[in-house]
Amino acid sequence: MADVPTIHDVRAAAERLEGEVHRTPVMTSQAIDAIVGMKLYFKCENLQRVGAFKFRGATNAVRSLADAEAARGVVTHSSGNHAQALALAAARRGIPAWVVMPTNAPAVKRRAVEGYGATVVPCEPTLAARESTADRVQAETGATFIHPYDDPRVIAGQGTAALELMADVLGLDAVVAPVGGGGLCSGTCIAVHGLNPNVAVYGAEPERANDAQRSLEAGHLIPVGAADTIADGLRTSLSERTFGILRAHVAGIVSVSEAEILHALRVVLERLKLVIEPSAAVPLAACARLHPALAGKRVGVILSGGNVDWDALPQLLASAT
Amino acid sequence: MADVPTIHDVRAAAERLEGEVHRTPVMTSQAIDAIVGMKLYFKCENLQRVGAFKFRGATNAVRSLADAEAARGVVTHSSGNHAQALALAAARRGIPAWVVMPTNAPAVKRRAVEGYGATVVPCEPTLAARESTADRVQAETGATFIHPYDDPRVIAGQGTAALELMADVLGLDAVVAPVGGGGLCSGTCIAVHGLNPNVAVYGAEPERANDAQRSLEAGHLIPVGAADTIADGLRTSLSERTFGILRAHVAGIVSVSEAEILHALRVVLERLKLVIEPSAAVPLAACARLHPALAGKRVGVILSGGNVDWDALPQLLASAT
Repeated sequence: MADVPTIHDVRAAAERLEGEVHRTPVMTSQAIDAIVGMKLYFKCENLQRVGAFKFRGATNAVRSLADAEAARGVVTHSSGNHAQALALAAARRGIPAWVVMPTNAPAVKRRAVEGYGATVVPCEPTLAARESTADRVQAETGATFIHPYDDPRVIAGQGTAALELMADVLGLDAVVAPVGGGGLCSGTCIAVHGLNPNVAVYGAEPERANDAQRSLEAGHLIPVGAADTIADGLRTSLSERTFGILRAHVAGIVSVSEAEILHALRVVLERLKLVIEPSAAVPLAACARLHPALAGKRVGVILSGGNVDWDALPQLLASAT
Repeated sequence: MADVPTIHDVRAAAERLEGEVHRTPVMTSQAIDAIVGMKLYFKCENLQRVGAFKFRGATNAVRSLADAEAARGVVTHSSGNHAQALALAAARRGIPAWVVMPTNAPAVKRRAVEGYGATVVPCEPTLAARESTADRVQAETGATFIHPYDDPRVIAGQGTAALELMADVLGLDAVVAPVGGGGLCSGTCIAVHGLNPNVAVYGAEPERANDAQRSLEAGHLIPVGAADTIADGLRTSLSERTFGILRAHVAGIVSVSEAEILHALRVVLERLKLVIEPSAAVPLAACARLHPALAGKRVGVILSGGNVDWDALPQLLASAT
């Protein structure tokens, strides 16, 4: 596979994923359409295994490995949905997985990864410690490192969500995907434009982690520092690879405020009756900003995940009203 | 239609409802199955129009009226999901609706009913005032009174949810439905046993509003007083009609504590990623109590609604942990 996956890689991923990932439903709401002034189609990756689209990319990476390579296992550093996704993908192939996680990660996240049968390797909470620890695990075990987003197999896997969306909803005018490290949005671009170059793809990110917007405006990569946004899945920065894909494909990057994210989150909870995590509310918040450009249009919205911290969410929602 | 509907009435309701109500999905969760020790099939009436099964019964009642009768409109007294359901059902038939609501009902509920085009008629917050006000509206307008549950048309309509569940999931061993006034549970009994008398139907209610359990044990109707349970949709008591149906059909009534309801609610939010109201969590809480009788069995669970008070739920969830 080349450095940048193509629609053929996304299609190959879709075949590899059959029977492994849920074909998630697409939901609609007349009430939300009336609020936003568009016809919205929500791709429910919150209902995906492990509660997020991340299971697609992780599964494609794990299932792409040759048997001998796979037998030595996989390793990553993450305390988010990718960690759980890789753990389950490895377990389903019957191979070991190591997840490097900072010692200050919440115990509930560590237990979730261990619950899927992976080994958590603790490290100091710095990027250098994460990387050196992952290197050490690789050296000791021969495991393959699977990056959360800067990996063509992962990007192709994430693209399968948009592939299904495009097959299930004909005549879409646009698709909006959240942007953190850019894996999902890159895969979405490749899938959507591989099927129909006339469908506009927008990236959506928090104002407080708007590295994609700033990088595209500047024409070169500008990583964010420690981003303090409730959309905790979108705090990471693009890689050169995902930056290149987004630059070639997106019609625009829309950044939204914390208040807009919370408002969109509440609309989904109240109207769609679906539990989504704050990161997954960012594309809907962006839709409101894309009016009037998309007024009356048919717009696909990727609800990326549903792993909510129920100990924290209540205060967030209360603060939003 | 007779005083007690039959499976034929439920089938006729299903035909009447076609194109009007959503055929809601049935969802499953391996994680919840592992927790409860059964194979559970969740019928998602939280995704129904107006966010609750109530739209089925209200629509069947409204669509059962002859044209001349319908033209004079419908009236009910309710501040819950039935009020919104009747308002929308009337609007969709293009007839007027009046909803008698106590002056102390939350403004958000009044606005929701008005949002569907119905007229809210305020009354003093007593049962006597509710009934006399509804009588007055009937006398003045000629509108037909549609009771929230003590009405064969409403009961037959509610039964269509179980009819769909039985068609979509073959080989169910049991179905568990919540019990408030008994409309949903009565319709479920008639639908399930009309298709297969060997499937056990259980009613589930809060311990704090366990009139169905006590009435069945005593062999006569024992209404509850002012029930203080978070399952606000289940505070009402059976009527003679629904008591009779339940007595003839149910394998048992399971009552659960407030803590069990909150725990089940949290399991659905976290694992199924669905927003449900506390009343809708009661059947899942009951399933845990039905182990070991139903261990390993295929059990249908009716998730009755998803209209959550997001200003109150956070504190509730926090208190449950």
